[in-house]
Amino acid sequence: MPELILASKSQTRQAMLVNAGIEFDAQSAPVDEAEIKASLVADGVSARDIADALADAKARAVSMMNPDALVLGADQILVQDGEIFSKAANRDEAKSKLMKLSGNRHQLISAAVMYEHGQAIWRAVDSATLHVRELSDGFIEEYLDALGEDAYWSVGCYQIEGRGIQLFEKVSGSHFTILGLPLLAVIDFLRRRGMVST
Amino acid sequence: MPELILASKSQTRQAMLVNAGIEFDAQSAPVDEAEIKASLVADGVSARDIADALADAKARAVSMMNPDALVLGADQILVQDGEIFSKAANRDEAKSKLMKLSGNRHQLISAAVMYEHGQAIWRAVDSATLHVRELSDGFIEEYLDALGEDAYWSVGCYQIEGRGIQLFEKVSGSHFTILGLPLLAVIDFLRRRGMVST
Repeated sequence: MPELILASKSQTRQAMLVNAGIEFDAQSAPVDEAEIKASLVADGVSARDIADALADAKARAVSMMNPDALVLGADQILVQDGEIFSKAANRDEAKSKLMKLSGNRHQLISAAVMYEHGQAIWRAVDSATLHVRELSDGFIEEYLDALGEDAYWSVGCYQIEGRGIQLFEKVSGSHFTILGLPLLAVIDFLRRRGMVST
Repeated sequence: MPELILASKSQTRQAMLVNAGIEFDAQSAPVDEAEIKASLVADGVSARDIADALADAKARAVSMMNPDALVLGADQILVQDGEIFSKAANRDEAKSKLMKLSGNRHQLISAAVMYEHGQAIWRAVDSATLHVRELSDGFIEEYLDALGEDAYWSVGCYQIEGRGIQLFEKVSGSHFTILGLPLLAVIDFLRRRGMVST
């Protein structure tokens, strides 16, 4: 049975797999995500294809170093009206991002790619749609006060499983896709590979 | 501003409200849920109405003791092909319940009712549909080994945020409804009451 390696040190993705009872190791992928993403955005590549390409790049890089392992790469893109968001670097950027999300709906697109022996052998993409209510300035300030630096490490400045739920009037799609991994599809693949009990 | 009291000591519901940044106290409701549920089932009451009636009974009981507070009662019912499930009392019951769920789809119906001054002032019900894959005997044994007594305190013998995700091939509906509370509706109500920032 090959070993499963998650090509990511994302705490959220690791927690999802741990909680689901999946055994794996985690390794950071030595790829410059920001540079790849900027280049794909500049080329007009769709959000879905960018998520897939980044998941692919991470899985490939870790597979090269662990050819016999099954390597899972994952990525998530936030897109609103065709605009692909990046993480906020500071409070001003977080505030202007929340003002952009306010009263609109956006998609979260989560991609997963499996590599083995340096080759992609499986891929999945799923998306969820989130409707943000009209947020008052007072709410945004209070929310950013409560979150502190935690607002900067997720692309939409929210964790839906935390105070971020206060942003939304409606949420459609898989919770796991929103957290950053099409988990049911990943588990289904692992089951068919005999790595999770049927 | 009235105080908010959750008429439940359910860890999952408390965690949902805490994580969402809602301030509240929790009090157990002195009602015999099992008896009320059995009586409503015997009367042929629908799953949706049973969830609502149990949430109402819990909120009412706690409101009587705390008339000036806003009291939130909640309940969740699992129904499959018209049959309303109860919690498993032991491993044999858990196993036969999982065998019933296997290869079928069921609904989780979560109800919330708000009381103030002994009167119901707001109610919401939401449901989610879960498709369970065909589970092998080996999987069920392994799963129950892994869960231990944790299999007995949820009505479907699963926590979707844990190893329970391995039961499913498809999940449709709100994650919070699946956890036992129509959280977006509750927060919307609290916002309109001025108890959560807008």
